[in-house]
Parts: sequence; structure tokens; C-alpha cells
Amino acid sequence: MVSEQKEEYREYHSPHSGIFLTKERILFKERSPYQEIEIFENGFFGRVLTLDGLVMTTERDEFIYHEMLVHPAMVSHPSPEKVLIVGGGDGGTAREVLKYPVKEVHLVEIDGMVIEASRKYLPTISSALDDERLRIHVEDATKWIEGRRDEFDLVIVDSTDPIGPAEGLIGEAFFRNVFQSLKDDGIMVIQSESPHYHLDTIRTIAQRLSKVFPILHMYTAPIPTYPGGYWAFSMATKGLRIEERQPIPQGLKYFNRSIYRGAFALPTFLKDRVKDLVKEPF
Amino acid sequence: MVSEQKEEYREYHSPHSGIFLTKERILFKERSPYQEIEIFENGFFGRVLTLDGLVMTTERDEFIYHEMLVHPAMVSHPSPEKVLIVGGGDGGTAREVLKYPVKEVHLVEIDGMVIEASRKYLPTISSALDDERLRIHVEDATKWIEGRRDEFDLVIVDSTDPIGPAEGLIGEAFFRNVFQSLKDDGIMVIQSESPHYHLDTIRTIAQRLSKVFPILHMYTAPIPTYPGGYWAFSMATKGLRIEERQPIPQGLKYFNRSIYRGAFALPTFLKDRVKDLVKEPF
Repeated sequence: MVSEQKEEYREYHSPHSGIFLTKERILFKERSPYQEIEIFENGFFGRVLTLDGLVMTTERDEFIYHEMLVHPAMVSHPSPEKVLIVGGGDGGTAREVLKYPVKEVHLVEIDGMVIEASRKYLPTISSALDDERLRIHVEDATKWIEGRRDEFDLVIVDSTDPIGPAEGLIGEAFFRNVFQSLKDDGIMVIQSESPHYHLDTIRTIAQRLSKVFPILHMYTAPIPTYPGGYWAFSMATKGLRIEERQPIPQGLKYFNRSIYRGAFALPTFLKDRVKDLVKEPF
Repeated sequence: MVSEQKEEYREYHSPHSGIFLTKERILFKERSPYQEIEIFENGFFGRVLTLDGLVMTTERDEFIYHEMLVHPAMVSHPSPEKVLIVGGGDGGTAREVLKYPVKEVHLVEIDGMVIEASRKYLPTISSALDDERLRIHVEDATKWIEGRRDEFDLVIVDSTDPIGPAEGLIGEAFFRNVFQSLKDDGIMVIQSESPHYHLDTIRTIAQRLSKVFPILHMYTAPIPTYPGGYWAFSMATKGLRIEERQPIPQGLKYFNRSIYRGAFALPTFLKDRVKDLVKEPF
């Protein structure tokens, strides 16, 4: 009997370690002007979206990333009505934001092909992309945001890793534009890489944010398909104190009141790298 | 030029997913009466101990597992003097326990070859195995513990996955013996597998523990080389209320006061599976 060798997805997290996923079926594979986009089916994680060979999201574990990117900031805001999502073309972040009675959500994604592929092949993630409160702009967010003043309650940066097209999204110039685009009680959140693999990047993001924002918090969540299975998020405000102000939406699978408080507890090896910059809110 | 194909370690966490680590050098590989023991060198995680092809510990990330297995219980106990470690042949758990002014620690490991290999090849982990307060018993802990009454302040179960030699260590009979071996204010802790991959096992452990112990807590920690990078721990008491009673040792790299409280915050997908059995202590 000849055993069939299945195609395998491999992602190196260091030159010496990484994850593998079997590719049961490739649903989409194309090069956009910005990156290589692939969606394949895996027997454990369901459909998997990769950009330039890095897992962005999977049907099985996307709820952790998207809930944790969105809800800590949303429940902390006194009145989240107008939200900007930078990146997030798969729609998962928009889906979570739209669980609140927001009035207007802008999604600025540089790569329209990510949006179209997600609409077609990731229906449970992209489900909210047709919500009438959402406006999609296929543009470079670093330019789109320039000159905007006191406009948003929340700016959520749901970017790829800060190399390639997303490099500008961790730049100090971009952070200054986000600051100015936020209202006085506004909140910015940005995905901030893996404490196990990217402590230097985490510190760089924190340094640049803290040059611009007076208050900076950090929290973490366990996401199995991201490097090390562990991810950091940075949350910055113009002075707003973090506390629970909005009811938590029903039906969430990761985020809850205990997690809201507990997620800001940083392990010592991470805290030691950012303690001069980051404040624990609780 | 011929490129050299390096040997690779692969661990399947499901039939469709897992991690790979390059094997820079194999330091030890032998079959004991109980299991296949291997220690190899990896360029990112340092030396890696595997038993029957599953990562038990690595030099780089072992501090997270060992600190989180030991310190939440140690700091909660009014006076931790006599401690039993079940398994833990690599010595990492003993090293953490011995950071407190305990009087007597018993380590009951079924496989003497794990102890010897760790002494030789994992010096930073096994460093405390020669502490004069430690007594090592190369025996089956399920038998060793039988008939012991009101003897220990803490029982810490640092076992392999509950298949093969460690299966009895999640049995109700063993839990009853642990209960009886503990003093009235005693605490039991047991590593409880991955919320991303082993929710059924987590529930089984919780069900059996809660048949025996009146109070059961659960907490988690992110450990990159374990399945999904995320691990659960169960903590059971005869009635003792969990609160900080001991000073936290200096020099820890993961555990701190914020983590002590935050780690017990369970994500909803895990809480939903154990909420009839597990109580949040804070």
C-alpha cells in the first residue's frame, strides 16, 4: 500500500522551532499586490488564513484573538459610538465591535483581496462585513488617518506582523495620528506580538506608544496558532482610567469579567521588559 | 553544495497539528522499564526532555510550568513544612518548593532513569535534587502514598500525560489517598493538561477531584512547548480558603502577586466545562 503524503503547512517561529498543520484542502491561494494570501482546510483548526506564510486566523481559535483585541477596550469606554479598525480584513474584529450598539465603524484594510477571500471562504469570521453600520475603505491606513481630529472613540489596530506592509502601523508617526484622531476619552488597542518570541518588538511598540499616549496598559491571551501560543496586546488612552463601563455582550467564548481583570496581570519576564512604560490598571 | 538535513523532533497534538523543534544534538536516548527517555539540544529552547515522544520540559520555558505548579499553592498555605512531590524526576518542581523554608520534601518518581538523566544533562533544572531537605523515592507513588494520614501540607502532582505510567495519578482512588495524606489545611495541586486540546481530560480530572475534595480551583499558564501553548492546573483543598499567606520568593521569572490572582480567571470556553465543579477563589 502506498501511503499518501499530505501537504503540510509549516511556520517557523524561530530558526529552530515552529508549528505544523496538515493541509487537507487548499481553498484559495493568490498573490495580491501586498502579500501571498492562502486559505486552507485543517482537520483540527478548520479553515486557516495565512498571509506571507504566517497564520493570521483559524476558524477554531479566532474567537480568542478577536474577543481579546476588542472587548477589553469596548467595555472600558464610556460610550463607544464611532470605531476605527485598522487592518482586520477578515472581518473578525468588526464582528466583535458590532456586538455593541455602536453607530459607525470604519474598517481600513490595505488589501482588498483579503476581504474578498474572507467573505468567500471564512463566512463565520467575515459575517459582519455587510453590517450597515460598517464602512470599508480599501486604503493605506497610515495615510487614511492623517489629519483626522477628535473623531473616534476607539482605534483598534488588527495588523499583520510589523514587517512588510504593516511596518508603518507600529511607527511613532502613525501613533501620533491615531492619538489625534481619538476623542479625549478615546482608547487605542494594538496587537503586540508574542511574549515568548518577540519581547524586543513588544518593548519597541510600548516605547513608541508611551512617547505619544500618557497611559499605557498591556494584557495577554493564549492563542494556539500564534508563535508560542501566547499573545500580547497594548492599550493606550489619553488619560481615561480603565474600568468596566459597558455590559459584556452575551455569547462570548473567551472574554468575561474575570478575564477582563486577570488578563492585565503580566508574568514577571514580560513585566520586567516594560514596567517603566506600562501601568497595571487594576 | 549539499545542504545537511537536520534531524527534527515532531510532536502531534492532534492528528492534524503540532510542533517541530530542530535537534541540534542528541545528548541522551534510552528506554527505561517505563518509557523512552530522550534529551536533545534545540537552538531556541535549549535542552529538551521528552518522554515517549512528548516534551516534558525545556531549559528555556520550564520556569513557567514549574513556578506555576508550585507557587500558587505554596504562597496560599499557612505553614508549608512537609511537601510531597509525585513524579517530577527532573527536579524542577523540587527546586521551586525548596525556595521556601520547608523542613522536608519527598519526591516519589517511578522512573529512576529520568532522575539520573536530568542530573547529568539538565543541571539548571535538577539543581536542587541534592538539597538535604529532599528525600527521593524511586517508587510507584500510587502505592507509596497508601495508608499515609495527616502527613503533608502540600501534595504536588507533577506527572506526565495521564496515559501509560501516569494513568493512575488521575484516578479517584489515588485522589482519596492524597486527601488522607494531607493535613486539614493541606493543598493538592495537579497539572491538568491543555484547555485547547484536552477539555475532556480537564473535566474528568475536575470531576474526580471534586468527588474527594470539598474545594476545587483551577488556573492556567501559557507554556509554549505544551500542546496549544496553554496549560491548566487544578488545586484542591479540604476547606482551606485560598489567600496569600507566604511571601513570594525573590527571583521568580513568571509568578508574581498579579499573576497569583489573575491566573485563576478562566476563559469562558474552559469555565463552561467545569463551572459546576470549580470555584474562583478571588
